Amino acid sequence: MTKRDLLGLIGKSAGATAMYMAMTELGQAQASPFKGPIKLDGDPKGTSVLILGAGVAGMTAALELSRAGYKVQVLEFNNRIGGRSMTIKGGDTFTELGGATQTCQFAPGNYINPGPWRIPWHHHGLMHYCRELGVQLETFQQMNYNAYIHNTKAFGGKPQRYGAVQSDYYGHVAELLAKATRQDALGDAITREDGEILLESLRSWGALDKNMRYVKGNESSDRRGWVKGPGGGLTAEPIPSDPMDMHTVLQSGMWRAIGGNISLDHQQAIFQPVGGMENVAKGFARAAGHLVRLNSKVTAIKQDASGVTADYIDTKTGQKLTAKADWCVCAIPLTILSQIPMNVSPELDAAIRAVPYSPSVKVGLEFKRRFWEEDEQIFGGITSTDLPNAQISYPSYGYHSKGPGVLLGAYTGGAYSYELTTLPPAERIQKVLEWGSQIHPQYKDEFMNGVVVSWHRMPFIQGCFGMWNAQNRADHYKNLCQIDGRIVLAGEHASYVGGWQEGGITSALDAIGRLHQRVVAG
Amino acid sequence: MTKRDLLGLIGKSAGATAMYMAMTELGQAQASPFKGPIKLDGDPKGTSVLILGAGVAGMTAALELSRAGYKVQVLEFNNRIGGRSMTIKGGDTFTELGGATQTCQFAPGNYINPGPWRIPWHHHGLMHYCRELGVQLETFQQMNYNAYIHNTKAFGGKPQRYGAVQSDYYGHVAELLAKATRQDALGDAITREDGEILLESLRSWGALDKNMRYVKGNESSDRRGWVKGPGGGLTAEPIPSDPMDMHTVLQSGMWRAIGGNISLDHQQAIFQPVGGMENVAKGFARAAGHLVRLNSKVTAIKQDASGVTADYIDTKTGQKLTAKADWCVCAIPLTILSQIPMNVSPELDAAIRAVPYSPSVKVGLEFKRRFWEEDEQIFGGITSTDLPNAQISYPSYGYHSKGPGVLLGAYTGGAYSYELTTLPPAERIQKVLEWGSQIHPQYKDEFMNGVVVSWHRMPFIQGCFGMWNAQNRADHYKNLCQIDGRIVLAGEHASYVGGWQEGGITSALDAIGRLHQRVVAG
Repeated sequence: MTKRDLLGLIGKSAGATAMYMAMTELGQAQASPFKGPIKLDGDPKGTSVLILGAGVAGMTAALELSRAGYKVQVLEFNNRIGGRSMTIKGGDTFTELGGATQTCQFAPGNYINPGPWRIPWHHHGLMHYCRELGVQLETFQQMNYNAYIHNTKAFGGKPQRYGAVQSDYYGHVAELLAKATRQDALGDAITREDGEILLESLRSWGALDKNMRYVKGNESSDRRGWVKGPGGGLTAEPIPSDPMDMHTVLQSGMWRAIGGNISLDHQQAIFQPVGGMENVAKGFARAAGHLVRLNSKVTAIKQDASGVTADYIDTKTGQKLTAKADWCVCAIPLTILSQIPMNVSPELDAAIRAVPYSPSVKVGLEFKRRFWEEDEQIFGGITSTDLPNAQISYPSYGYHSKGPGVLLGAYTGGAYSYELTTLPPAERIQKVLEWGSQIHPQYKDEFMNGVVVSWHRMPFIQGCFGMWNAQNRADHYKNLCQIDGRIVLAGEHASYVGGWQEGGITSALDAIGRLHQRVVAG
Repeated sequence: MTKRDLLGLIGKSAGATAMYMAMTELGQAQASPFKGPIKLDGDPKGTSVLILGAGVAGMTAALELSRAGYKVQVLEFNNRIGGRSMTIKGGDTFTELGGATQTCQFAPGNYINPGPWRIPWHHHGLMHYCRELGVQLETFQQMNYNAYIHNTKAFGGKPQRYGAVQSDYYGHVAELLAKATRQDALGDAITREDGEILLESLRSWGALDKNMRYVKGNESSDRRGWVKGPGGGLTAEPIPSDPMDMHTVLQSGMWRAIGGNISLDHQQAIFQPVGGMENVAKGFARAAGHLVRLNSKVTAIKQDASGVTADYIDTKTGQKLTAKADWCVCAIPLTILSQIPMNVSPELDAAIRAVPYSPSVKVGLEFKRRFWEEDEQIFGGITSTDLPNAQISYPSYGYHSKGPGVLLGAYTGGAYSYELTTLPPAERIQKVLEWGSQIHPQYKDEFMNGVVVSWHRMPFIQGCFGMWNAQNRADHYKNLCQIDGRIVLAGEHASYVGGWQEGGITSALDAIGRLHQRVVAG
């Protein structure tokens, strides 16, 4: 199957992917307006709320509504709480659409977070619940100067260290701007006095020498690394390394990797739960798990003047059941919700169908040893590549562990995800091994086993996250979020923080705040 | 006492401080040439080595020489192994020169590393021993975009977030260079084709808008942060923030903070031992602690054709003793060694006296709660200030802990260290509280207790680290490191990685490698 055929298959959603990419470049998928714990003052007078879906949005709504005095019941399709916020460890089994079943073979202590995997410091809602629910955090190593940038079309496919590329780009930018400044080429863009400070700053930031040049020497090696670093005794003197020239840096395209590392969602400090992202779900489960009925597949949602009912099937027993409440917070992903009969307004119905979902594939690979640490001194962080696997992320936990190690071997989206998923799981992993071994030749000898999560094949979601763009946002976003009769939607798809747990949490808080106002006013 | 008086007191070493600062700017204090475990092949035939000082240099020598078959004895002044590589926790007591005793009051789990506190990924020697000795590592949060830069002379003394300053500096640098590029002002410094790529890269890296301007909007807010971040539901739309103009950024001087965060010694990945730096010493103690005699103050070192003797006093009993061996690896700091009679060549004697030591003061402060996390969303990282405390570093462990928290309230050097240390410890802490409360007003209500380590007052070292400059390096470094008869020196002072444990380790390995060659050849 060619990429052209695939694009045909993908249809509308590929366009949306491109639009989403453009959108994230425009910074639409950032921070949070969370300002502290929600206050739902006023008596709900015995009002009941049915919550559909026990991901972080549903669980946030369940926890806060039950605290405010509502009667809450949550229906969850899966056999666990958390939705996409999950962790795969040795012994875990899952079956995707089409029937392929995988059982994870990882050694004890190893894991992969196939869904959300990072918590930026400014995701205040999620950070709040981590603190409140006792979810222990550790630093996620996002930027590692000793990880690689890999481009099949540059340096003969030989990966380069991130730090060397960034240093050389910064150094040459500084040198060029210094030259323009000294030649008074900036015109009235800067005063002469500021120009003097600018030059001083460029020398400091860009590691320029006393002639304002970015050249081989102690200054540049103190950023990009040495050929032989300084040491002790009589073998101590360091040997500087040769910077790349600006033509090489620009032509390599590797400067593209820098922007992503300094964007708000990837800036230090950024965290992961100790032991896996599932600990967020476990925290919610400790606080509100008693409100959740698992293995409950919703088949129809009806509302009228007296309340909301949801028909559902117990997936273990096949029993058909119905839940009823005064209101409904529906946190079912739009991919699934669009397949469930539900009497809502034409506007909400149109909105539900207007948001395509990103496909995404994540692959966890277990190797006999942490060769990336032992051989290449890469402790955590991310290697980026133009190969379809896109990223290799090294574990930010258990540094120096001597047993088998697990890394994220691919985090890919768009057309590649569909292409990869036409193959059986074992062959997807084989592809990812072929790509990765171009960066780490050790893959071939050290590989033990792997697990692949293709989000558009996961039965409970059938996609990775909702993809908004300027057009469907303008046409449908408000309609998606408005309370429709007795139903209100929540989830990352009902937010400006798409694909992040923070979107689910802040959308749930916004939805229940409005619901509560209706209830206490009514 | 005025600063002028102090400079008079400090004399020669203040000049050396300035020179060291210039030297570190020149990148003399970086990485490591460590290339893997040392191999000492060949039979030492029962040769004995006396090692003086059980810091990381002495312990490295002890461990490897004993493995190679040498008879090893280590004499250590302190009642513990590790030297400057230590951790202060609740209940720890220490007495400085002059007699002032402090007992640390920190709550269980809190600590401060008053000496080395960071392990860069490229300190390969130390990383090797951490792995081998089972010293568990976690990420040290060096750069935190949400920590502050504080300058009493800018923004009316109001601290600014690091990320906003860096984003604005980068954005304006990108805009200025883009302007020069588009006006063909760079001349032959860049080809037209590269110029096109440069513009594309500047837009991506600098977060410029479609007109190549760094202005208020989604692009810049995605770097510097939003007024109101994006969220969920109907309160979701983000509000962009206003960047500072370039004049403000340049005049503030805050751009100075950027270079230090991207220098090789401070680049991610960078680590700390879980539970405190003392775990490095504990690792060495597990492996070679049986070779160490504690509480042993060396009073004289003599060598002749038959071997080396060290006179020492047991500081617990007052007993005078003598140790004897074929060779001596002397890892006593130069500050102390220069006070001990020792018959060495005039060249080594001169070298020992040629290296002044940096004074440094570190202050640990315990507060009732982690207000920096709760109120200001600062999780680890470092705030820099032009006040004498210089740095405030927030703990990179136990995020979200609800009990008392400890931060590093000052890490200051040079003249300030002497000035501060003219005061009794409690008053030093009071000064640090006054400075810090200009950045964190919570200091006043939340302070519980503190501990101050003034390295030039610590009896076992009387300084912080050896300060080399181009002149004394040229005149004395080789003489300091040469084997002198039967004595060879080791320690960070005998390295190009001054003030870092890596200097001590690599100098010890270099020294014992040369010693071993003599022994097997002899």
